[in-house]
Amino acid sequence: MSNNTFGKLFTVTTFGESHGTAIGGIIDGCPAGIELDLEAIQKDLDRRKPGQSKIVTQRKEPDTVQFLSGIFEGKTTGTSIGFMIQNTNQKSKDYSHNVNVYRPSHADYTYDKKYGVRDYRGGGRTSARETANWVVAGAVAKQLISDIKINAFTSSVGEISINKPYQDLDFNLIESNDLRCPDTEMAEKMIDHIKEVKKAGDTVGGTITCVIQNVPIGLGEPIFNKLHAQLGKAMLSINAVKGFEYGSGFCGTKMKGSEHNDKFNQDGTTKTNLSGGIQGGVSNGMDIYFRVAFKPVATLIQKQETIDSEGNVVEMQGRGRHDPCVVPRAVPIVEAMAAMVMADFYLLDKTTKI
Amino acid sequence: MSNNTFGKLFTVTTFGESHGTAIGGIIDGCPAGIELDLEAIQKDLDRRKPGQSKIVTQRKEPDTVQFLSGIFEGKTTGTSIGFMIQNTNQKSKDYSHNVNVYRPSHADYTYDKKYGVRDYRGGGRTSARETANWVVAGAVAKQLISDIKINAFTSSVGEISINKPYQDLDFNLIESNDLRCPDTEMAEKMIDHIKEVKKAGDTVGGTITCVIQNVPIGLGEPIFNKLHAQLGKAMLSINAVKGFEYGSGFCGTKMKGSEHNDKFNQDGTTKTNLSGGIQGGVSNGMDIYFRVAFKPVATLIQKQETIDSEGNVVEMQGRGRHDPCVVPRAVPIVEAMAAMVMADFYLLDKTTKI
Amino acid sequence: MSNNTFGKLFTVTTFGESHGTAIGGIIDGCPAGIELDLEAIQKDLDRRKPGQSKIVTQRKEPDTVQFLSGIFEGKTTGTSIGFMIQNTNQKSKDYSHNVNVYRPSHADYTYDKKYGVRDYRGGGRTSARETANWVVAGAVAKQLISDIKINAFTSSVGEISINKPYQDLDFNLIESNDLRCPDTEMAEKMIDHIKEVKKAGDTVGGTITCVIQNVPIGLGEPIFNKLHAQLGKAMLSINAVKGFEYGSGFCGTKMKGSEHNDKFNQDGTTKTNLSGGIQGGVSNGMDIYFRVAFKPVATLIQKQETIDSEGNVVEMQGRGRHDPCVVPRAVPIVEAMAAMVMADFYLLDKTTKI
Amino acid sequence: MSNNTFGKLFTVTTFGESHGTAIGGIIDGCPAGIELDLEAIQKDLDRRKPGQSKIVTQRKEPDTVQFLSGIFEGKTTGTSIGFMIQNTNQKSKDYSHNVNVYRPSHADYTYDKKYGVRDYRGGGRTSARETANWVVAGAVAKQLISDIKINAFTSSVGEISINKPYQDLDFNLIESNDLRCPDTEMAEKMIDHIKEVKKAGDTVGGTITCVIQNVPIGLGEPIFNKLHAQLGKAMLSINAVKGFEYGSGFCGTKMKGSEHNDKFNQDGTTKTNLSGGIQGGVSNGMDIYFRVAFKPVATLIQKQETIDSEGNVVEMQGRGRHDPCVVPRAVPIVEAMAAMVMADFYLLDKTTKI
Repeated sequence: MSNNTFGKLFTVTTFGESHGTAIGGIIDGCPAGIELDLEAIQKDLDRRKPGQSKIVTQRKEPDTVQFLSGIFEGKTTGTSIGFMIQNTNQKSKDYSHNVNVYRPSHADYTYDKKYGVRDYRGGGRTSARETANWVVAGAVAKQLISDIKINAFTSSVGEISINKPYQDLDFNLIESNDLRCPDTEMAEKMIDHIKEVKKAGDTVGGTITCVIQNVPIGLGEPIFNKLHAQLGKAMLSINAVKGFEYGSGFCGTKMKGSEHNDKFNQDGTTKTNLSGGIQGGVSNGMDIYFRVAFKPVATLIQKQETIDSEGNVVEMQGRGRHDPCVVPRAVPIVEAMAAMVMADFYLLDKTTKI
Repeated sequence: MSNNTFGKLFTVTTFGESHGTAIGGIIDGCPAGIELDLEAIQKDLDRRKPGQSKIVTQRKEPDTVQFLSGIFEGKTTGTSIGFMIQNTNQKSKDYSHNVNVYRPSHADYTYDKKYGVRDYRGGGRTSARETANWVVAGAVAKQLISDIKINAFTSSVGEISINKPYQDLDFNLIESNDLRCPDTEMAEKMIDHIKEVKKAGDTVGGTITCVIQNVPIGLGEPIFNKLHAQLGKAMLSINAVKGFEYGSGFCGTKMKGSEHNDKFNQDGTTKTNLSGGIQGGVSNGMDIYFRVAFKPVATLIQKQETIDSEGNVVEMQGRGRHDPCVVPRAVPIVEAMAAMVMADFYLLDKTTKI
Repeated sequence: MSNNTFGKLFTVTTFGESHGTAIGGIIDGCPAGIELDLEAIQKDLDRRKPGQSKIVTQRKEPDTVQFLSGIFEGKTTGTSIGFMIQNTNQKSKDYSHNVNVYRPSHADYTYDKKYGVRDYRGGGRTSARETANWVVAGAVAKQLISDIKINAFTSSVGEISINKPYQDLDFNLIESNDLRCPDTEMAEKMIDHIKEVKKAGDTVGGTITCVIQNVPIGLGEPIFNKLHAQLGKAMLSINAVKGFEYGSGFCGTKMKGSEHNDKFNQDGTTKTNLSGGIQGGVSNGMDIYFRVAFKPVATLIQKQETIDSEGNVVEMQGRGRHDPCVVPRAVPIVEAMAAMVMADFYLLDKTTKI
Repeated sequence: MSNNTFGKLFTVTTFGESHGTAIGGIIDGCPAGIELDLEAIQKDLDRRKPGQSKIVTQRKEPDTVQFLSGIFEGKTTGTSIGFMIQNTNQKSKDYSHNVNVYRPSHADYTYDKKYGVRDYRGGGRTSARETANWVVAGAVAKQLISDIKINAFTSSVGEISINKPYQDLDFNLIESNDLRCPDTEMAEKMIDHIKEVKKAGDTVGGTITCVIQNVPIGLGEPIFNKLHAQLGKAMLSINAVKGFEYGSGFCGTKMKGSEHNDKFNQDGTTKTNLSGGIQGGVSNGMDIYFRVAFKPVATLIQKQETIDSEGNVVEMQGRGRHDPCVVPRAVPIVEAMAAMVMADFYLLDKTTKI
């Protein structure tokens, strides 16, 4: 019951700090016999990596994954898959100015109080660098459940939001812009907004929508391992996430039952899909869709007043290379976590009837 | 890794269908030496039970919990606590008309497809009756972490919503009306709305806000067992829940970092609390607050068209005694799940430093 | 990670003290669609129950299992199966003489020190009465893996031991005597020995051998969930067990590799089976066999000197109705635990290759 | 519930094949604030490594552990500890002769059948090389529970056995000979025997005894996580282990209760210790001792007849550098697994009473 492990049957356990030697993980429970496309895995990592465009941090990390076990002659062997990503950019920088300073709305304070020890180099274990591990594991999961299609995309930045239902979007356009937003018109506006915010040394929040299609009926395990509850937990595990809703979500609370109920077609599909593809925690074969809320990044390129561990008021200023908006780089992370959840339930479901 | 188990150290495992002999559960990991106030537990159950007011289902179930083990001379012994609630109201009713019918936006269809077997009496295992078990376990959890104060309340019904921040509400008023809404003025409007909806044989959704106060610093376990992620999972496990947000939530996505960051006071508290009492998955000692979205109940007292298991179109009509709005009865459920999460992290935290 | 839960996919979680209202448990992970033979389950319970013959305790408990959920129209539904066994024999006896006394080689002392609270009525949670729960769960497991044949039997009592390899025994004779020993000649000697020991108010140990046949190749999960390691843990969980060996066991330590290696036949079976049907933690299709060591029961019908919780020396005497030898009643317990292990690995194996 | 994870709170998850790039693991749940003695960890690894003496394999692997995370300025931080051991000796040897051959009494056959894929280079994941990971994790565990003293030693090789109770042995002599046997006289005989066996290209089994001293009262968790049951599982996870017994073990089955019961002293210690320091799965403060049975190594430097995956009879011959007896190198492995079990229960016990 490691707290650094995600999943029940398809699991990943991770390690690593932003400024240590390496980060990495162990994927366990991946069935034997999958011909792994390693390039596809690296490609997902590249979608997450820093320095890929002008609207993300300009830090440069190659983020090359190295697999250490569990794969033989191109196929998974059923044994645990160890992998590692070297930290190449953790120059012997001087962090002494951070030793005692608690950055506002970071985990510096809570970790220090909880553990009595604090790795003050960058974010330590709380850095979103950890999510590179998740992208690797998620990319393996995608190959296990290759029939299931998972597409995440930026659906809002600040106040600017896509106004179309996802059905009217062309997912092929997601990677056509730096924001990963398939509504190219709105994407431009959002990108402009991020650039402005960045110029001011500020940051901004946003939302990601994820759509999971071609889902077999029956994935998800009642009572305490419902499909949407586990998706929610997965998303809420991502740094900076403040909310999760699926199907009709918070809007659904304003509706009447007579409006909200999804009527059946004769083949078991439904005419509407306010349920979001899940009934009683179990997939019904319709599209699963959900929305994830990301707060603005806490590290600003502005002066901020804060305190140190002795309670002295100090002034601090974030330096150089931070994301003005996490959302574009978080898109592959959302997909990765969704893939791990789906892979896990795919395996669990193999054991639920004789 | 039972799917019917919640928690890591403080756990509950449950069983039971709405129309079986009994429902019940086993609480494990509850430390020895707690003098259990059994009346307080029953009282929480009474807050959840049907028939308690005019805006909830008129079904009558006494919902009396019986403890079977783990308590000796009034104290917990450290062994597993078995408990049971008899189903008194499951008259040998004729369910034959339900055998093949899939109710819209219920789990009938997904369970049938997943398991190939369906308990067609009421909701079977998917019935929210199960949540009575959670209220029992949560009420025990509350007594383990008695210093932590957990208050949930109805914050909206349909379009009608409390407009005040929770700090301006008097939690002592929560139980002063049938809705469990501390804004007594708005409560009346919401109650009226529920009555109207009920008259029309319809149902309506709503939201519950939960505030957790007096939380020790340091509860929550990174990376995949973050405090808010586990709270989210807990809430998303409740029947009819479609969304969860904590702290600034979805609104926070529209903010700038310079607005959103919570500045420190010298004592480590923060001047604002958009973070919602949690940084990096770990409590910072400020209030934790979150909001839970409930869709309208799917069972209507109206005719609905649906299909049976052979794909025939059939007409069905819910009968008699259903909740027009789940929110009032869900308030103690939200509290119970929150209490279990907090109790679990309280125990886990005892092992995190030497 | 409840400590009162056994198994990973096919799990049982239990509760109950010897002198509480009832004992019981929740089976989770049992696939849907099994037509449960409830009589077979009760029959296994009857094999374990007290009072069944002259060489076991003369206590009378009907030990009738009542299923509360998870079964509908005779079939498992895939939901959790709650069950309960009433304690009928826990008369409001006076236990006051036990309140402070620590019985030698019982768990009274360790529980008191660990929990600071002690249920002094009988053995409380440490009573072997708990194993009735396991027999129920194991009997359900047997029906899930009905092709696998599990036979346990008494192989020694004190110094008296069966001298034949299990292949020369007729398992149909196991239930032909009160001892559950298929070597009827040796059984008589062992029974006589137990009677003598009983007459002296003393107790004696023994061993049980278990043979699992018709096992599919491939059950068992490396590295930390090996088939024999989990069987070992299961057996060591049974009250009074002091040792476990499988295949060649402790005798194998005295052999050379050239003697011990099992040569293959062309069909993959082996000419000998010193390995005990398992290689690298995974079944190879040959018979699995192991031996379990039971110490003599600690409760004697003799005067014993001991201490109370204040460290005073006191004299105590066990009363009336205790087992002179646990082995005959432990046979169905060994089978039950073995069945649960096999059922769990049977389900796990469904997820190990594509 | 990764099968490559050991432990509940103090956990290790591992990866790696004998002939891959590296092996390694992730320790999770290690509390923050431990000043880790890295040399002590490497020293335990050196006790396990090949090539250290004439009675073990002459393969040379430096087995240097590299820590990748979770340690900062010499102290554990409470985050997961990643570590890695490079495989330096896996020359691009020609394994083509092994591709289809199933070595007798190895896991080649069972893995191939289970996974449908086989890493035929050396033992792949089934190689005892994996246990180097355990030694690292165990060495960390030892530092968490540094007051508890764990000593394992060789107690028999083939038919030759120490005849003294452990109380008469000087544990300081364990490392005084290549066998790790504190009875130096018997050690010589055993070493001679191993040399003979080796000369014949054969192998031999043996036993290891482990004594755990200075154990706090109260470690161990009923019902399904008993201290001795988990120790048993840990030991049975080690390659080549066929049996486990603690306290009186199999000998205890031959005793009467009146002989076997451990009488109390007034301070709660016992006059004898046939129980082996554990009552009801919980430590009683007396020494814990157990014995582990190792079969002879299956790889012989002799010709053996076997089959290939098509069922053809083939002749094979182990080459060069195998252990004639695993026992000397297994001593630190036994200690490591025991340390992990004790560390886990040490943490669990912190949560069992208020």
